Amino acid sequence: MTTAIETGVAILGFGTVGGGVADLLVRHGDLIAERSGVRLALRAIADLDLERSRGVRVDRSLLTRDAAAAIHRDDVQVVVETIGGTGAARELILSALEAGKTVVTANKALLAEHGVELFAAARHSGAGLYFEASVAGGVPIIRALRQGLVASRIPAIFGILNGTCNYILTRMEEERAPFDVVLREAQAAGYAEADPSLDVDGVDTAHKAAILATLACGRPVPLPAVGTEGIRSVSNLDLDYARGLGYAIKLLAVIRNESGGVSVHVGPCLVPRSHLLGQVRDVFNAVLVKGDASGDTIYCGPGAGRFPTAGAIVSDLVEAARRCAAGAAHDDAYAGDPPRLRADTSDRARWYLRVMLRDQPGMLARAAEVLGHHEISIASVVQREARSEPHVPVLFLTHRAAFGAVRRALRELARMDGTGGPPVCFRIEDLDGEPSR
Amino acid sequence: MTTAIETGVAILGFGTVGGGVADLLVRHGDLIAERSGVRLALRAIADLDLERSRGVRVDRSLLTRDAAAAIHRDDVQVVVETIGGTGAARELILSALEAGKTVVTANKALLAEHGVELFAAARHSGAGLYFEASVAGGVPIIRALRQGLVASRIPAIFGILNGTCNYILTRMEEERAPFDVVLREAQAAGYAEADPSLDVDGVDTAHKAAILATLACGRPVPLPAVGTEGIRSVSNLDLDYARGLGYAIKLLAVIRNESGGVSVHVGPCLVPRSHLLGQVRDVFNAVLVKGDASGDTIYCGPGAGRFPTAGAIVSDLVEAARRCAAGAAHDDAYAGDPPRLRADTSDRARWYLRVMLRDQPGMLARAAEVLGHHEISIASVVQREARSEPHVPVLFLTHRAAFGAVRRALRELARMDGTGGPPVCFRIEDLDGEPSR
Repeated sequence: MTTAIETGVAILGFGTVGGGVADLLVRHGDLIAERSGVRLALRAIADLDLERSRGVRVDRSLLTRDAAAAIHRDDVQVVVETIGGTGAARELILSALEAGKTVVTANKALLAEHGVELFAAARHSGAGLYFEASVAGGVPIIRALRQGLVASRIPAIFGILNGTCNYILTRMEEERAPFDVVLREAQAAGYAEADPSLDVDGVDTAHKAAILATLACGRPVPLPAVGTEGIRSVSNLDLDYARGLGYAIKLLAVIRNESGGVSVHVGPCLVPRSHLLGQVRDVFNAVLVKGDASGDTIYCGPGAGRFPTAGAIVSDLVEAARRCAAGAAHDDAYAGDPPRLRADTSDRARWYLRVMLRDQPGMLARAAEVLGHHEISIASVVQREARSEPHVPVLFLTHRAAFGAVRRALRELARMDGTGGPPVCFRIEDLDGEPSR
Repeated sequence: MTTAIETGVAILGFGTVGGGVADLLVRHGDLIAERSGVRLALRAIADLDLERSRGVRVDRSLLTRDAAAAIHRDDVQVVVETIGGTGAARELILSALEAGKTVVTANKALLAEHGVELFAAARHSGAGLYFEASVAGGVPIIRALRQGLVASRIPAIFGILNGTCNYILTRMEEERAPFDVVLREAQAAGYAEADPSLDVDGVDTAHKAAILATLACGRPVPLPAVGTEGIRSVSNLDLDYARGLGYAIKLLAVIRNESGGVSVHVGPCLVPRSHLLGQVRDVFNAVLVKGDASGDTIYCGPGAGRFPTAGAIVSDLVEAARRCAAGAAHDDAYAGDPPRLRADTSDRARWYLRVMLRDQPGMLARAAEVLGHHEISIASVVQREARSEPHVPVLFLTHRAAFGAVRRALRELARMDGTGGPPVCFRIEDLDGEPSR
């Protein structure tokens, strides 16, 4: 393909991902130009720290501490934001968009929290805002949803979107090691941050879920609408039980886009081991998209990492450059009013409920009575032989019941005499796309 | 998104897929316009049979028997070809491209055999040629390779690309039923054609493999370069053995794009059951793409079917319409000279070799000697207890050896006294991307 388009690029943030983008532009510039007809010319890299080596061979004259100057260069058409966070990154992106510069970002927190504001600025100036790298790293899931599946209504998306959590749950299950031990291992291996709360409390997954939900329904889904639980409540006992029942426990984003409204929920779910999503291990991400025309399509790959993320950013740069050169419209994502939102209390699902009951007659009946009182129908009960502990785990698998009812039952079970510790409750997601109401 | 673009579409062929495209344009026209800004206006449907009902509500004034007239209408910018085959379809596509009309097709046989000619015609007139639906039905794998992974070198692709074969192999393994019985079941269920040879002999997979190989290396890979074996040689015995060893047998397209050249092979392979590709069941397709930046990404979904295929065609229509409207260049695929091709005889792999040997002393040693003579090193041997048959199956798993040497050894084993039937030989693909030389 003849190179017809040259586009000037500035990178804001010369860290792991920004350095990866610079490296790909230098090493694979010819390959990209040959494939796409687009020559991405690196014109500036802005970072506050210009001394530390990034292991990338770039012309030092490209480096600057002045991000604003990099953005406003006449020979820069597209700005890559890899600073992260919602402070300086937001201001710089707004400033770039207002100046008519198209922006490519991997910043899911920023999109989930300020997508409406950012896209309004892009719309106003006619610039584009691209974010393929914000969800599932190297897996082109945004492009699949926006383009490949453009002809399908999307009633549901199920995603394993956080590599750290999936790594921890995989190791907990396979090594039968407790959460704290595996978390420390993951931190030592560089798979978890020193402060792991964004990952293990489900916040990062919620950001990505809000973005996918926005694309699924075509309207901006606000972050507070995402019901969010993390994985701290997942124990080895539950992983063992689930495995025995043919399930894996995954931190799952569940997006439902149904006629009654949109609901988004993030939390540990039981997923059939016979399904591909139940087989996704370690730091891999996977997204199952239900489409009315496409059927079930699944996208899987590394959810993070320098080059997967940088590669996704470069794919956006190519598309942005082509559209800029053609004077074509950029995609708008956060347009219109929010969709009708449905509270997750109305979500109907099958549930995994595990309570610790004192090993004495009548306890099982009392717990079952609580469930019946809330009109939760029991599909099966598992009680292992008593061991020496004063409490024994009792497991209820329910028929389909509303989350609101289950939550009320859980509160009553937690208060019941003779229980040891709070009850544990996870959704069972059979991934068959049955409506949630 | 405001609808800015209206594009006139003619559909050639009002069969399963063509009817599906018409149906999506009618039922989802508003959805598509809202998401993409493109209004796809159906202007003509050409078919020789206009009487049979297709279960699609379209204005009968759109129907015509004159495909040429449909193509040349002034209000048609993009032509969808769903006739299939390499006869009339080729002539109509060439005629459309020569008239400057952009073409969208699902016709893998035509692309694999005549891609160079078709793209030359497209290049000459400045028209586009789109083919997302040609590989893996509803899974947007072409788009992923061309756009999402534009920044990655692609050293290898592994694909389960034929739903019929995957269905047959899954049923054979799970029901322990022989090939002929399962094939008849598949025919009855509509998963296999009355003449199944295009599918079960690997020809359809070879077409798709040639297309993916062309995208991976950026040069046209000719169909005769694809070494092709079908699944008729796969027996229940081998499926059982493979399962016992932790493998599934899949009809796999293996594309290697290495410094020594490009090689493409289609044949039954042992794939680890612990890998997602080993878990892909029934009519599903899956593609594993190794990218130097992206890492391993996997794409999975229905490989065929009316709406998955039609949805992929519509996604191409949207992209084609946007590029036409912007006056932007269309992607070129079959440009340049063919890549350096490497004969699959030089492919190095681990091998599964099963021979039937007369149950008498010395036979195993003689077979092992044949392998040693061809410098094929044995990793392990499995010989089950003898049953009442005169011959017993003996299984050799080899270390890495070249296909050429293995083929010579197979010929010698087939001629050896005391063997019962020809030896069976499948590659073991661990999918770890280790170079094949």
